[in-house]
Amino acid sequence: MPRIRSAESPRKPDHPPTWRDVCYEIIFEADTPAGKAFDVALLFAILASVLVVMLESVASIEARIGQTLRIAEWVFTILFTLEYILRLICVRRPWKYALSFYGIVDLLAILPTYIAPFLPGQAHRLTVIRALRLLRAFRIFKLAQMLTEASALRHAIWASRAKVTVFLSVVVISVVIMGSAMHLIEGPDNGFTSIPQSMYWAIVTMTTVGYGDIAPQTEVGKALAAIMMIMGYSMIIVPTGIVSAELAQAARKPLTTQVCPNCVREGHDIDAKHCKFCGAEL
Amino acid sequence: MPRIRSAESPRKPDHPPTWRDVCYEIIFEADTPAGKAFDVALLFAILASVLVVMLESVASIEARIGQTLRIAEWVFTILFTLEYILRLICVRRPWKYALSFYGIVDLLAILPTYIAPFLPGQAHRLTVIRALRLLRAFRIFKLAQMLTEASALRHAIWASRAKVTVFLSVVVISVVIMGSAMHLIEGPDNGFTSIPQSMYWAIVTMTTVGYGDIAPQTEVGKALAAIMMIMGYSMIIVPTGIVSAELAQAARKPLTTQVCPNCVREGHDIDAKHCKFCGAEL
Amino acid sequence: MPRIRSAESPRKPDHPPTWRDVCYEIIFEADTPAGKAFDVALLFAILASVLVVMLESVASIEARIGQTLRIAEWVFTILFTLEYILRLICVRRPWKYALSFYGIVDLLAILPTYIAPFLPGQAHRLTVIRALRLLRAFRIFKLAQMLTEASALRHAIWASRAKVTVFLSVVVISVVIMGSAMHLIEGPDNGFTSIPQSMYWAIVTMTTVGYGDIAPQTEVGKALAAIMMIMGYSMIIVPTGIVSAELAQAARKPLTTQVCPNCVREGHDIDAKHCKFCGAEL
Amino acid sequence: MPRIRSAESPRKPDHPPTWRDVCYEIIFEADTPAGKAFDVALLFAILASVLVVMLESVASIEARIGQTLRIAEWVFTILFTLEYILRLICVRRPWKYALSFYGIVDLLAILPTYIAPFLPGQAHRLTVIRALRLLRAFRIFKLAQMLTEASALRHAIWASRAKVTVFLSVVVISVVIMGSAMHLIEGPDNGFTSIPQSMYWAIVTMTTVGYGDIAPQTEVGKALAAIMMIMGYSMIIVPTGIVSAELAQAARKPLTTQVCPNCVREGHDIDAKHCKFCGAEL
Repeated sequence: MPRIRSAESPRKPDHPPTWRDVCYEIIFEADTPAGKAFDVALLFAILASVLVVMLESVASIEARIGQTLRIAEWVFTILFTLEYILRLICVRRPWKYALSFYGIVDLLAILPTYIAPFLPGQAHRLTVIRALRLLRAFRIFKLAQMLTEASALRHAIWASRAKVTVFLSVVVISVVIMGSAMHLIEGPDNGFTSIPQSMYWAIVTMTTVGYGDIAPQTEVGKALAAIMMIMGYSMIIVPTGIVSAELAQAARKPLTTQVCPNCVREGHDIDAKHCKFCGAEL
Repeated sequence: MPRIRSAESPRKPDHPPTWRDVCYEIIFEADTPAGKAFDVALLFAILASVLVVMLESVASIEARIGQTLRIAEWVFTILFTLEYILRLICVRRPWKYALSFYGIVDLLAILPTYIAPFLPGQAHRLTVIRALRLLRAFRIFKLAQMLTEASALRHAIWASRAKVTVFLSVVVISVVIMGSAMHLIEGPDNGFTSIPQSMYWAIVTMTTVGYGDIAPQTEVGKALAAIMMIMGYSMIIVPTGIVSAELAQAARKPLTTQVCPNCVREGHDIDAKHCKFCGAEL
Repeated sequence: MPRIRSAESPRKPDHPPTWRDVCYEIIFEADTPAGKAFDVALLFAILASVLVVMLESVASIEARIGQTLRIAEWVFTILFTLEYILRLICVRRPWKYALSFYGIVDLLAILPTYIAPFLPGQAHRLTVIRALRLLRAFRIFKLAQMLTEASALRHAIWASRAKVTVFLSVVVISVVIMGSAMHLIEGPDNGFTSIPQSMYWAIVTMTTVGYGDIAPQTEVGKALAAIMMIMGYSMIIVPTGIVSAELAQAARKPLTTQVCPNCVREGHDIDAKHCKFCGAEL
Repeated sequence: MPRIRSAESPRKPDHPPTWRDVCYEIIFEADTPAGKAFDVALLFAILASVLVVMLESVASIEARIGQTLRIAEWVFTILFTLEYILRLICVRRPWKYALSFYGIVDLLAILPTYIAPFLPGQAHRLTVIRALRLLRAFRIFKLAQMLTEASALRHAIWASRAKVTVFLSVVVISVVIMGSAMHLIEGPDNGFTSIPQSMYWAIVTMTTVGYGDIAPQTEVGKALAAIMMIMGYSMIIVPTGIVSAELAQAARKPLTTQVCPNCVREGHDIDAKHCKFCGAEL
């Protein structure tokens, strides 16, 4: 199949579209009425199937309509399986799709129902991973703008990665050392049974979650915990400041250093073609 | 009534004000002494009536002065009913007022007392919705400035809506998946009785509230919870950064809304004298 | 005493300093060696006296050295009383000092010990209000810079007061309405005994403190609580963004709009006296 | 040994490297293949040894493979001791290294194992201080960039130190006064047994950790606690704003460190060609 075309769009403009081209357009694109209708229907199906799994996990509801919910789950799974197979058939490079993020999520969304009967427990509830498919929603509601924003956000976080890594390293090392110190100070009798357990407590405390299932009992332990709390409370400042500054930086309208050849004034925008003071061409 | 005038101001400058005009000025406006006095009195009445409902809900106080409080509640309700009727009478377009935000709040503030006798329980306590009427206070204390600020704030949040939607989607999907995972790992014996219950726990944990009524007991559950805490703790960074940057942006270089008369493009600086795209004079 | 001089500085440069002038300099100023020594000694005395009250409140320590601590408390109180009298004597306008913030704190710091014997309970422990006197420390350690910063901070918060008031109003009204709703939904059996109690719970939840002494038990209550948590978690964004933007605004180096008369270029700092490009006088 | 060379680099370019030079390069530098291999191996050894101590503290694991873990701990300790001795030998100024931050950490990382046998309890678990050695990791992964970022961060925090000190003073004084007030209001019967204990509660509350092991029971106490929570919740705004503004500031207009040769003043812009104060050429 040596025809040159993009992996994603199988339609060739110079011949009438085959059924696979039509199928591709409906399933993968959202800019035709049929494509949009398909995506909206899919979105509701995903929401409904996630809801079914949730309701099934509630004992009182399961006792009443458990049979119905199990049937619904199988119906949704079979529908999603057909959709998955169709996607594999009508895309030009099936492996590329199958190994992409969405391809893997689509597979994981149907697998648990099929495997569950052979596994003990409630393995079929793993199907809630279907919730990840909701990310497709961004594409449907003309959310191109949103994706740009998401990418601006991702860029700001990416630009801050070095600072954030330094920050996270300090947090992790603090948790290890503080957790061990509390294990030695408080001891197993006060709930700090092991270093990992104490590290769990340290994370609960530094993130200000504070369940209270484990709490220091001794004076020294309380003093150390108080210091950790203030540290944890203050630490959030640092990454917040970093990302804020990065986003503010990104949002700042860049100026060129170009000088107007006519009035010798500066401060022109990157996209300026004429001096904003005298109108001469730049 | 085909006279052309604004819906809000029924006063016609060319004839002596009728009693409805005077009434309108006192009740709806706050720029005459009578109008301001009315608004301040109303504010105190609202505060007092909210306080009455609150006190009535405290068993020990209700036992002592319950009778007085019930009478006070009826007095306030009748006063607010009279006020509501007056508002309907003296405004030019009653339906527009009745269906506006404040009109609905004003109605909801009196309804519960009338309906409560026919309902079981403590339905009349819904009158605390009166607290919403306190929002009128902004108008009284020359808070025009405040409203501008509120609107600047609303604008910054609105400008960030795409980023915030992306952020909230990620939070919701995380809560669904993490909640389900914890339900499978911890199971009903440790308090994670169903997926909705586990999602409640996931929200309590990610927002760092941490009641501790449900807490992971197994090692794997604790490890996953620790990851969720750090995620939740870090996530607050993102929207904070977004809104900060947006507000900083708003506070920065103002652009004029002027459009170039030649090329009809926007985005010119306040100090621009020529269009930066085509050089035409602005 | 009609001599014209400032209320604070009683020293007249044209005659030898009286003992009151010397006393004033030592007690009120910190720029002479004696004045600085006095301030440092005072700081340690305050810290020690606060520590004494703290230790006295610990039952096990009180049982052992209670007598010593009570004597120490009286010694510190008498010392601070002498200091207070000296301040009154050597300052030129005693009433102005007595009614200033520091004057009132200085009085409140000694009163409890004297009144306590006539009151039941542990009233003398109110002497910990002495801790407020530590604010004087700012003056001692050449913290003039710090005070400038504190004032920059106060200014940024002051400039944001309208936005912050709007924000706090929304929070208070949310707490009243959400608290009442939870009181109706959960009822006294689940700990939401009254509206004030439920408002306390609402504040504990929205600020993400989350003690867990009161927590929703019903499904509807949990759903509403989850919404409140996300609201409270998100709300912190708003004032943070406001103050950040305000501070960033304040920190921005202001430029003049002045143009160099020689090279016609802009972008000069407020404090510039010469053009930074060609060196011509501005 | 009067040869003039830097304390850190003992290699002289004009004679063949001695074994100490080679040893120095491998242990202290990371820019040769051998040096990098050594650093990566060291990193894994540190991680493994921290993991060994952690696992040993878990009772169930200790019961099964305790003997193996104790042997592993001794092996790692002996390896790190050899490494410490080698570092002392091959560095030119051993005392400077021994007294540097990393030198002290390297010593503290091996001491506990040797001293523990002579001490009661689990003192050897102090070896987790080895986790601090992980900070060396920054050097290995070409993290020079990261260190620059870390230093930018440190600089922003340092530049905010005055504001942060003012902020922390206010927090500490609030904690002392609020803690004492709650001790008087709630009393020992509700868990507020002493002032230090109440201060611990105040910190737990203001940082929004909220364990719930101590919580106010009286109405007045709850009201005061509610105020403290809102204070604590709002306070985080202040330092966040400060550091954000400082970082945004740092990211903005860079100044040169150039000093005017004529008037010896600083603060010139990067693009300045003439001193903005006196006009002299830079």
